[in-house]
Amino acid sequence: PENLPGITAGFAFRPETAKPMRELAEVLLRRPNSLTSGEREMIATFVSSGNDCAFCRDSHRAAAAHHLDGNYDLVDAVCANYQGAPISPKLKALLAIAAKVRTGGKQVTTDDVACARLEGATDIEIHDAILIAAAFSMYNRYVDGLATLTPADPQAYHAMGQRMAQQGYGSAGA
Amino acid sequence: PENLPGITAGFAFRPETAKPMRELAEVLLRRPNSLTSGEREMIATFVSSGNDCAFCRDSHRAAAAHHLDGNYDLVDAVCANYQGAPISPKLKALLAIAAKVRTGGKQVTTDDVACARLEGATDIEIHDAILIAAAFSMYNRYVDGLATLTPADPQAYHAMGQRMAQQGYGSAGA
Repeated sequence: PENLPGITAGFAFRPETAKPMRELAEVLLRRPNSLTSGEREMIATFVSSGNDCAFCRDSHRAAAAHHLDGNYDLVDAVCANYQGAPISPKLKALLAIAAKVRTGGKQVTTDDVACARLEGATDIEIHDAILIAAAFSMYNRYVDGLATLTPADPQAYHAMGQRMAQQGYGSAGA
Repeated sequence: PENLPGITAGFAFRPETAKPMRELAEVLLRRPNSLTSGEREMIATFVSSGNDCAFCRDSHRAAAAHHLDGNYDLVDAVCANYQGAPISPKLKALLAIAAKVRTGGKQVTTDDVACARLEGATDIEIHDAILIAAAFSMYNRYVDGLATLTPADPQAYHAMGQRMAQQGYGSAGA
């Protein structure tokens, strides 16, 4: 479907694969977790930004901002230079791991994991940071490999992010 | 769980994310499709080989071989040099697309897609080749990012591939 934006075009074309892809996003980004949805959406945005996937970056940037009381500046600070952003040392350690997974899983060292644990990250938080980065390495390639439509209007993403944050990634979400 | 090989360790640690990840593999690699399971498992093996993920490469190599009457040589020929392998021009065109998706979704050109269509690929086949390559960009990063155990014994993969080919990726499969 040429008129649907980004990943929603792929989802509409192939509902059989859309179902598990949506469910994975829902579990990783919205289900109750010791990491907030705002933190997890920032990891997703950061990875999509690194992969230069404009649709995923801008839609998850908006979803993150909605979870963070509209604080787009914080999301942008994380994407620009997370080490200098006003976020917790734990989230910085998880973003360092996510950045390596984006490039390749073997980049992650035992030191990276030890550093995250020192900053208070649990095994599930480390696991989920790795899988969010791995999953967006999939979503980004899917969206760009299909050459889907990328809306140019920032307002479109604001509304999309609100839906993603409030209604999620189930059959009704984006 | 330190004693489980490869992705099964991640799946046992986090059943909530394992469910959609297993379901996606089942739909992409085993559900009825105009591409055979042997062809689809070869695409998965080829991508995992390019990403140097030994566990995914060797287990899906064995699954592909089981679908191909034990023809490991054909799978190895595809990984070594698919352009020279004794496979259909259509599968070669789909592998060319998969190789680009592995590197980054934006690498895929309209010419690549036109070439696959000329060789008889349907829209679903092109979509699925893109998504198999994208999904293994996730599975490979997940397996290596978690630094899971990689069995050294080739016989272990032969049995694993047989289970994957016969029982699939549902809750009972690998």
